[in-house]
Amino acid sequence: MSKNFRDMLETFDNEFPERDYTIEITCPEFTSVCPKTGQPDFGVLLFEYVPDKVCVELKSLKMYLQQYRSEGIFYEKVTNEILDDFVAVSQPRRATLTARFTPRGGISSVITVEHIAQS
Amino acid sequence: MSKNFRDMLETFDNEFPERDYTIEITCPEFTSVCPKTGQPDFGVLLFEYVPDKVCVELKSLKMYLQQYRSEGIFYEKVTNEILDDFVAVSQPRRATLTARFTPRGGISSVITVEHIAQS
Amino acid sequence: MSKNFRDMLETFDNEFPERDYTIEITCPEFTSVCPKTGQPDFGVLLFEYVPDKVCVELKSLKMYLQQYRSEGIFYEKVTNEILDDFVAVSQPRRATLTARFTPRGGISSVITVEHIAQS
Amino acid sequence: MSKNFRDMLETFDNEFPERDYTIEITCPEFTSVCPKTGQPDFGVLLFEYVPDKVCVELKSLKMYLQQYRSEGIFYEKVTNEILDDFVAVSQPRRATLTARFTPRGGISSVITVEHIAQS
Amino acid sequence: MSKNFRDMLETFDNEFPERDYTIEITCPEFTSVCPKTGQPDFGVLLFEYVPDKVCVELKSLKMYLQQYRSEGIFYEKVTNEILDDFVAVSQPRRATLTARFTPRGGISSVITVEHIAQS
Amino acid sequence: MSKNFRDMLETFDNEFPERDYTIEITCPEFTSVCPKTGQPDFGVLLFEYVPDKVCVELKSLKMYLQQYRSEGIFYEKVTNEILDDFVAVSQPRRATLTARFTPRGGISSVITVEHIAQS
Amino acid sequence: MSKNFRDMLETFDNEFPERDYTIEITCPEFTSVCPKTGQPDFGVLLFEYVPDKVCVELKSLKMYLQQYRSEGIFYEKVTNEILDDFVAVSQPRRATLTARFTPRGGISSVITVEHIAQS
Amino acid sequence: MSKNFRDMLETFDNEFPERDYTIEITCPEFTSVCPKTGQPDFGVLLFEYVPDKVCVELKSLKMYLQQYRSEGIFYEKVTNEILDDFVAVSQPRRATLTARFTPRGGISSVITVEHIAQS
Amino acid sequence: MSKNFRDMLETFDNEFPERDYTIEITCPEFTSVCPKTGQPDFGVLLFEYVPDKVCVELKSLKMYLQQYRSEGIFYEKVTNEILDDFVAVSQPRRATLTARFTPRGGISSVITVEHIAQS
Amino acid sequence: MSKNFRDMLETFDNEFPERDYTIEITCPEFTSVCPKTGQPDFGVLLFEYVPDKVCVELKSLKMYLQQYRSEGIFYEKVTNEILDDFVAVSQPRRATLTARFTPRGGISSVITVEHIAQS
Repeated sequence: MSKNFRDMLETFDNEFPERDYTIEITCPEFTSVCPKTGQPDFGVLLFEYVPDKVCVELKSLKMYLQQYRSEGIFYEKVTNEILDDFVAVSQPRRATLTARFTPRGGISSVITVEHIAQS
Repeated sequence: MSKNFRDMLETFDNEFPERDYTIEITCPEFTSVCPKTGQPDFGVLLFEYVPDKVCVELKSLKMYLQQYRSEGIFYEKVTNEILDDFVAVSQPRRATLTARFTPRGGISSVITVEHIAQS
Repeated sequence: MSKNFRDMLETFDNEFPERDYTIEITCPEFTSVCPKTGQPDFGVLLFEYVPDKVCVELKSLKMYLQQYRSEGIFYEKVTNEILDDFVAVSQPRRATLTARFTPRGGISSVITVEHIAQS
Repeated sequence: MSKNFRDMLETFDNEFPERDYTIEITCPEFTSVCPKTGQPDFGVLLFEYVPDKVCVELKSLKMYLQQYRSEGIFYEKVTNEILDDFVAVSQPRRATLTARFTPRGGISSVITVEHIAQS
Repeated sequence: MSKNFRDMLETFDNEFPERDYTIEITCPEFTSVCPKTGQPDFGVLLFEYVPDKVCVELKSLKMYLQQYRSEGIFYEKVTNEILDDFVAVSQPRRATLTARFTPRGGISSVITVEHIAQS
Repeated sequence: MSKNFRDMLETFDNEFPERDYTIEITCPEFTSVCPKTGQPDFGVLLFEYVPDKVCVELKSLKMYLQQYRSEGIFYEKVTNEILDDFVAVSQPRRATLTARFTPRGGISSVITVEHIAQS
Repeated sequence: MSKNFRDMLETFDNEFPERDYTIEITCPEFTSVCPKTGQPDFGVLLFEYVPDKVCVELKSLKMYLQQYRSEGIFYEKVTNEILDDFVAVSQPRRATLTARFTPRGGISSVITVEHIAQS
Repeated sequence: MSKNFRDMLETFDNEFPERDYTIEITCPEFTSVCPKTGQPDFGVLLFEYVPDKVCVELKSLKMYLQQYRSEGIFYEKVTNEILDDFVAVSQPRRATLTARFTPRGGISSVITVEHIAQS
Repeated sequence: MSKNFRDMLETFDNEFPERDYTIEITCPEFTSVCPKTGQPDFGVLLFEYVPDKVCVELKSLKMYLQQYRSEGIFYEKVTNEILDDFVAVSQPRRATLTARFTPRGGISSVITVEHIAQS
Repeated sequence: MSKNFRDMLETFDNEFPERDYTIEITCPEFTSVCPKTGQPDFGVLLFEYVPDKVCVELKSLKMYLQQYRSEGIFYEKVTNEILDDFVAVSQPRRATLTARFTPRGGISSVITVEHIAQS
């Protein structure tokens, strides 16, 4: 499933590969669907990564994230899956995804997943 | 006593056990009773943990915490006890519970308890 | 029902009845129970009133509000009922009660009820 | 179109019709679709109303608003339309809807629509 | 009692009596004693006044307020009494005193008293 | 000069002309040039208007405001001129433009201009 | 004394005299000297005015305010005096000066002076 | 002197001595007297400690701190002395006291003192 | 291209070369142009550096940054390029540039680039 | 020059030399003069130090800093010079001075200088 979404992510060449530098991307308008209740979930995604050969193109990231709008998927799964797609496509030196979901039943959740490239 | 509450906590399989990742859960509506004065206490609980084989199910956590609503128990005890239950049920790689209680007599308290799995 | 609670409210003489002045009382630790779901509700109550012959004693107000801790009652009803009790006991020249309830299902509510004495 | 959505709104009897009081409802998770670009729009809706014979039931309001999730509709239209549905169903003495939409192209919008019952 | 304190308040000539203008004075370090419990009370006092012939000298106001440090007195009384002293000494065209007291038993209070000169 | 810019503003039909309602538009990325120093000026523009027959199209407003990027013009003039263009094109029932400029020489300015239609 | 300072204030023609509009100017770096203690005073000045024939030039206002850097003068006097100079030079339709001084002895002051042109 | 105050501090058994955990206590209503000027000082005290055999009882801490209300003592001394008393009575594994005093003469101070048990 | 801009950066002698100290410079009014869409981009630049033989002169930095006002350039490139220019001209011991760009399509970006001198 | 200012700094004995503890002093009302433009500069100074044999007396620090009121001196120089004076007089174990200057030309600066005693 997620594999189809992954194809939407585009990249462009990193012009400064000789230097480790950090790119943070905040996407405050993420929404998916709770597979248990059918109710929409909402969250803010923060990507922080050190690019290697390529950078992730922002507009394609936006379009990619919109694919989850009708997708029934749990918090833990969606966070891990999105980071996996991000890493598979851009092969960064390091990448962290922090997903802050809005409260449900008075309880709010933050999931933080990290990837470090094997050297 | 607490043992009965503990049975209410449910878990589900961690689908990403090969990766260390962090789950934060904020519960701003915790309330128990001061055993000395009989007055209600109020606090915000923050769980931060790295799951191992299972994750804690949020709705069951909410129901579990509501059991303290009529329970006479001190700040230090309730914080340690809840972390113990959380750890017993989910066996996380690491877990921290921070409990911020509202002011009493002009004085406010925060209790922070941490568990690290023996490897 | 409410009538029994009302008896808990105590007053003391207003020493400055010749002057219109305002007393605001904020009670951030109000909690009752949703009669539909059985789940606890939480809110912040703000009383603003102009006393006439008597003022409401704060400790008795606290004890009175704690009676709702196990009471199944809707937002609209509890707000109107508490103002009615407050007015019945203290007969203020004016009184407003604003009740800000925490989010449920992503939606939060504020109820504002006002009483103005007939002259 | 909107007419079908309107049927989802439920009401319950106002137990305190002899008194003018105000109910504010904040729905921070509204989302619809821009009919021009096909991109999702996001906003926070604030209803403020004085009920007459009935109050609007919160869960049905949540379900009603979720119907717009896949609906292509402009800011001005959706705000006016939602207030019209709210008024048609609950016939309030007064009602205001304020819709704060998130920035698009660096520009953010707020639409405020008001209804006052004819006496 | 209060009469003795009042003598500490000093004034200086208002050099601009032909114009109505406003002076706000914020005193965040007010403290007195609760006559019931013997516990200290703390509050922030805000004076807003339109001077007539004289203005209140700030240092004397500070010294005056410090007299309440060991004084057992209720919120309502201390607020009215201080405004009375302020008015008696400076005869302002208008004066308001807002006293915001810190929480006691989870409940905080604000008392607002106003004086308007008879013309 | 401004007249040429004005042609860029587009409108669309107000579908709810029977009702007075308010549209606020915040444009935080306005920039022009100080005619005296040649230095860039920056500001946040807030339009608040009640539409009559037409509403102003947001994308055209963005493009219109970008025309000032290389324009040498003073704060007072640019604010009045933009409101004049906005009014000329959309003929609103009421319109206010508030322009908050960033500090220059440690001093910051806000210009507020209002238009009310003659009836 | 102040008269000399006043000469430093410059104006420029109001190009939009047919319209009442408001200019706010915030000067956060005002400093003078307390004539009693010789200690420096600090404040934030906010001018709000409706220009008539002329507007006040910002740079000259900055230079004018700097003249008070070594001037021994009380809060009430400096606020009234500056507004008087501002009005004398620019003859606005309305003008308000709000001066917020930083705390002295734990007490902070705000002076607000208003001028309305005689018609 | 301080020795007498120290006797007021009470403790209770730490039920979880096998675990290092942290207790933070915030006391925003501390006041003492400046020995030089005779003027009251105000501050916020933050205790952070890891209990060993006993915990400090909150009400006794409040009463202990109130003893300083009429005590002439400098910032540095009072902070060190209170930590010394706290440590003497509760023998914590670690303890830090941070005292934030309100501005005097436009200058504010924070004193931070730490104790680490010898092992 | 950038090379021409670089010549605008001026420096002055560091009078304290024997000591490592840090200079932070915040430039909240950076703007360039997106080479893809032709739309203006806006950002806040934060330079943090430890000077060696020279410091960067602030006014020349301002003029240098203004050269990007009409320059079509991507986020990643402009951030790396500006740091390169900054380093080439001032040869600091360490330098970091953090560029926070405003949201585009609901997504905001921060680029952080660091330089450490080879010893 | 600065040497004369230095003599104004007074110290008192550190009564707790056996313990490393930290004193933070915030001086929000620092002002000097730009030697280039003759315009006043404004900043907030934060001293953080671990005293050894003596502590710096606060009132003398205030008087010392006021000497810069008419002094033409650059940001980097004034920050280093003040720390040097502070260290020369009090010989602390460690000391840091952070000077946050207000924006000039839309650009704001923070200088941080640190001293660590040779052991």
